[in-house]
Amino acid sequence: MVTSQISREIVEDVERLLRTVGQIIKKRGREILSDFEITPPQFDALLILIQNGVLTIGELGEKMYLACSTATDLVDRMERNGLVMRERDALDRRVIRLRVLDRGHQMLAEVMAARKRYLAEVLVKVSPEENRAMIVALTHLSELMAQEEVS
Amino acid sequence: MVTSQISREIVEDVERLLRTVGQIIKKRGREILSDFEITPPQFDALLILIQNGVLTIGELGEKMYLACSTATDLVDRMERNGLVMRERDALDRRVIRLRVLDRGHQMLAEVMAARKRYLAEVLVKVSPEENRAMIVALTHLSELMAQEEVS
Repeated sequence: MVTSQISREIVEDVERLLRTVGQIIKKRGREILSDFEITPPQFDALLILIQNGVLTIGELGEKMYLACSTATDLVDRMERNGLVMRERDALDRRVIRLRVLDRGHQMLAEVMAARKRYLAEVLVKVSPEENRAMIVALTHLSELMAQEEVS
Repeated sequence: MVTSQISREIVEDVERLLRTVGQIIKKRGREILSDFEITPPQFDALLILIQNGVLTIGELGEKMYLACSTATDLVDRMERNGLVMRERDALDRRVIRLRVLDRGHQMLAEVMAARKRYLAEVLVKVSPEENRAMIVALTHLSELMAQEEVS
C-alpha cells in the first residue's frame, strides 16, 4: 500500500517535470527558430522528413496530423523557402515524393547546434554527478519506454 | 579543456535523451488520444486554453502557430465536439472569446489520467532510488531553465 502511494507521487512528479521541461524546450526552440528563416511547422516537417527519409506529401501530412490541403500549403512554403523539392517517382510517375535539399539539411544542423548551445548554458550550472545521474535515469526510462512500445 | 569536453558529451546525451523521451511520450500520447473523441490538434488547443484561461481565436492561433483560417476551422470542430464555446465579451461585443466547457475539462482530466497510468507502468520498473535521482535532476533542470527564461 505504501509502495503504490510512493509510486503515485513519483508518477505525478515525473509526469509534471517531463511536461514542464518539454514545454520550456519547445518554447525556447521556437525562440531559437525566430533567428532562422524557418517557421515552427516547417521545422517540424523538416525534422520528420530527415528522420524518415523520402516521404510523399500524404505521408508527411499523416505524421503531422494535418489535413491534405494544409500539408500541401506547408510543402509549397517549404519549397519556396528552398528546403525541399517535389520529385516524381522514377517507376511510378504519378507518385510525388519530397526530397530535403542541402539548405534543409544545413538549416536543421544549425538549429540543432543552437539548441545544444542553449542546453549547455543550463547544464553547466548542474554538477557533473547530478548530470550523470540524470543521464542514467533518462537512459533507463527511454529504454523501458521503447521496450513497452514494442511489447 | 577536459571540463568542456565532458560538458559537450553531457549536452549531447541530455539533448538526445530529452528528445527521445519527448517523442515517445508524444507518440504514446497520440495513441492514448485515439481512445477518446478528440484529435491531437484539438487536444493541444484544449491544453493551451485551460493553461491560459480565456483566449480569443487569434490568441489561440498565435500560440499554436496556426494561420487564422486554420485556427477558425479547428475551433469550429472543437465547438461541434462540445469542448468549447464562443462567447462575446460583455464590454466589447466585437471581441469573441473561447470558453472551455465541462466536457472539455473532463476530457483533459481523463486523458491526463490515462497518460499517468502509462507512465506508472514504465516507472514501476525503475528502482525508487533511480526515480528519486531523476526527480531531483529534472527539478533542478526545470528550475534552471525557468530562471534562464526570465533573465
